[in-house]
Amino acid sequence: MADSGLKNMIDEIFHPRSIAVIGARSNESMENDGWVSRLVAFGFPGTIYPINPKASEIMGLRAYPTIMNVPGSVDLVIFNVPFRISDRIMADCAAKGVKFAHVFTAGFSETGKPEGIRLQNEIERIAKEAGIRVIGPNCMGLYYPKGGLTFGRLLSNKPGPVAFVSQSGASASRVVAQGTERGIYFSKVVSYGNAIDLDGTDFIEYLSSDPETQVIASYIEGVKDGRRYFNVIRECTRKKPVIALKAGITEGGSRAAASHTAVLAGSEIIWDAFFRQTGVIRVSDLEELLDMAMAFIYLHRPAGRRVGIVGRGGGLGVVATDMCETAGLKVPPFHLETQKRLEQLIPDAGTSARNPVEPDRGLAAWAAFYEEGLKAIDGDPGIDIILTHLGIDIYGGIGDRLNQSLDETIAILLKLSKQLSKPLVIVLYAGGRAETINAVLLAQQKCLEAGIPVYPSVPSAAKAISRFIGYHEFLDRKAGKPK
Amino acid sequence: MADSGLKNMIDEIFHPRSIAVIGARSNESMENDGWVSRLVAFGFPGTIYPINPKASEIMGLRAYPTIMNVPGSVDLVIFNVPFRISDRIMADCAAKGVKFAHVFTAGFSETGKPEGIRLQNEIERIAKEAGIRVIGPNCMGLYYPKGGLTFGRLLSNKPGPVAFVSQSGASASRVVAQGTERGIYFSKVVSYGNAIDLDGTDFIEYLSSDPETQVIASYIEGVKDGRRYFNVIRECTRKKPVIALKAGITEGGSRAAASHTAVLAGSEIIWDAFFRQTGVIRVSDLEELLDMAMAFIYLHRPAGRRVGIVGRGGGLGVVATDMCETAGLKVPPFHLETQKRLEQLIPDAGTSARNPVEPDRGLAAWAAFYEEGLKAIDGDPGIDIILTHLGIDIYGGIGDRLNQSLDETIAILLKLSKQLSKPLVIVLYAGGRAETINAVLLAQQKCLEAGIPVYPSVPSAAKAISRFIGYHEFLDRKAGKPK
Repeated sequence: MADSGLKNMIDEIFHPRSIAVIGARSNESMENDGWVSRLVAFGFPGTIYPINPKASEIMGLRAYPTIMNVPGSVDLVIFNVPFRISDRIMADCAAKGVKFAHVFTAGFSETGKPEGIRLQNEIERIAKEAGIRVIGPNCMGLYYPKGGLTFGRLLSNKPGPVAFVSQSGASASRVVAQGTERGIYFSKVVSYGNAIDLDGTDFIEYLSSDPETQVIASYIEGVKDGRRYFNVIRECTRKKPVIALKAGITEGGSRAAASHTAVLAGSEIIWDAFFRQTGVIRVSDLEELLDMAMAFIYLHRPAGRRVGIVGRGGGLGVVATDMCETAGLKVPPFHLETQKRLEQLIPDAGTSARNPVEPDRGLAAWAAFYEEGLKAIDGDPGIDIILTHLGIDIYGGIGDRLNQSLDETIAILLKLSKQLSKPLVIVLYAGGRAETINAVLLAQQKCLEAGIPVYPSVPSAAKAISRFIGYHEFLDRKAGKPK
Repeated sequence: MADSGLKNMIDEIFHPRSIAVIGARSNESMENDGWVSRLVAFGFPGTIYPINPKASEIMGLRAYPTIMNVPGSVDLVIFNVPFRISDRIMADCAAKGVKFAHVFTAGFSETGKPEGIRLQNEIERIAKEAGIRVIGPNCMGLYYPKGGLTFGRLLSNKPGPVAFVSQSGASASRVVAQGTERGIYFSKVVSYGNAIDLDGTDFIEYLSSDPETQVIASYIEGVKDGRRYFNVIRECTRKKPVIALKAGITEGGSRAAASHTAVLAGSEIIWDAFFRQTGVIRVSDLEELLDMAMAFIYLHRPAGRRVGIVGRGGGLGVVATDMCETAGLKVPPFHLETQKRLEQLIPDAGTSARNPVEPDRGLAAWAAFYEEGLKAIDGDPGIDIILTHLGIDIYGGIGDRLNQSLDETIAILLKLSKQLSKPLVIVLYAGGRAETINAVLLAQQKCLEAGIPVYPSVPSAAKAISRFIGYHEFLDRKAGKPK
């Protein structure tokens, strides 16, 4: 398929003028989740046709017994039917002249059973003959907040710059749900399951030139055409960062992937070499995937890998330093001028101003320190990036004091972040207590709104920062720039 | 020092009949934290003497201008004084005949400054001559809930089987605070800082035969006597599991450790070999340390490494399988009889009963599945341990439905756990939303109270289970048992 043809076609999938939900539940409501109510809640701007032979109206919309009864044309169909009738439904879609089908229905070749395999082959054949392009089967389909498409009603309808291409529906749901809580919003997300037609490669190729997408994340179990995937990814990583979670990398995982999306998961050695060669940022779980997306959205590239660390707790500072250096960053001593300046700001004794530096006890002292201390570190020619870890779990206090002091500390960090020339990364340790967790969630929201990245731990931050820089170094090498 | 002498001496430190707080703040109250109020709040059963030349009463207790004015004998002194007068205070303690000193005061050799080094040498000399045994300087001292000792008033006063020996005060605070939220309670915790006298080795030797302690965790930057540490640890790991976080393992981290507790952090290669030889469970952060403690307290040893995985979300199951196998566990297919039984419990299509197995959508369906499904897996001769991951973040729903359904699911798990012969481990994914986080905290508490271990993610659970089994295999090898 030609590049521009694919591009236009997938763009059409994300912009259907009409959607028919075949197998719409008659008892759907804003309280009772379903495919029709999701589109209504998300304000899908086109026409929605609920298809249900036993209902005349669903969610205030006229329902039709079959798709053949729909008066207008149908761009996209969502299959929410038992898999045993999927061949008949696909034949109806062909007769109706449907363009695209999202087959949510599962039970096909991933079951390993003859009936499932036969039906999957059958719907593939019918769709191909009729020119219907298919997402799925066995998948959650599309989430496109800008266009009013979603696979979950609780998901945010705020758009953003991250795309997620996922073979797994649960992973797609988790990434969007957790991502938006962490200030990561999405351009286009697709869960494509068994991929009898369109697969991850197609969507990544499309997204590589999608102006709404700056970062591409993906969850993959296997690909249909390894050579094409390699070429698409190689081109894509030179334009936009690609983050990938490859699932099915162990013997048991590979067997589980076969039961999930009927793929061959492939050799771990080949995948590893492939990701290295093409500059893909490989992650091992969805939290790490979001950590990387956070870096790409919220950070600008620092001049180098030298981190200045600020945070209360001497031992915590030692571990934070280890974590940064283990991740490939450097924590050098501050310039002597910086040390002198910092020494004036820290308590008389017991804390070091060398790097890491430790403000005095209590949140109030932190606020006082940050006001001047961060500026001093920002002016240090030997430091490229500032990381501050706030142990709200142990230093936050309780009740009103916790909330008030945390508010003050965050207010100063927000004010300062605008004056700093170097990237600032904040780690908020929430601990296990409901009170500190809830206080941290509020503080995190404020930081994210001000454009400051927030991580739940130093290791997660350090790893993400290091690999974020690594991606830029990869681009430099590809562009032939000297190290 | 003879073993029994050390044992008795350290036991005395944890059971002082009287404590003097030198430098007690005159404005301490139950709202205004300080060393005296901590002891009062924790119900320390002995006599407390606040020492402050400008106060006559603190927290309702008679205050004395100096320790020389105290009428009775003083077992333990807490130094809360400026480091510049620490030599004079230690001389007073010597004159008074004090047995033990916890020098909370910092500013000594960890600063690298001549004055700090001189004063540290001086208090060391005075204490040694007078026979005063010292914890510190530059440390938080003792937490012994059973005996009414604490370094933090917000910490739990419920005792438990885990000891923590920490060179870092912040790490000690975090481990106790986060541990108790995760159902991990402590026998004895000590933060010992610069260790001019008693160091980690002494406390670990003591704890190895402490009947109140079943598991020993430690945070260490460096040791004074490597040979003795090696011997103590080697003996100890045959009696009780030892979990260790070694900090200062990188160039920057080693420099930070020197600024923190004035230690030489030593070579990473040597430490690594040492931990392997002695069967120490090495962890890289405090969260992992608590993950391990959780396994040792809540799990009984499974017959082998074969895990049965239960959880909604096909892709999440694939990743969970990868995580388990990467951690050294096995996720084999269930016995065909088990698969048949499970197939009757799962939806018609789209989920696999092979392992991992996936209950139907929604928490209500989970409850129904667990009732029979876990029993089937428990009866499978090819499975040794059951891990269930509950994606509350994406499947929990909202509002009343979330809380009610989660309650029902947890109630069934608690009921079942009593009927299962194999260890059950629960992973509760809370996500980033306040509502699901708070619901998960409550659910977690119920599981822990019923004796079921709870982890925040599959990787953390898998790693802990695998290393828990690994420790038992280590004991088998030491005992000469065949593999």
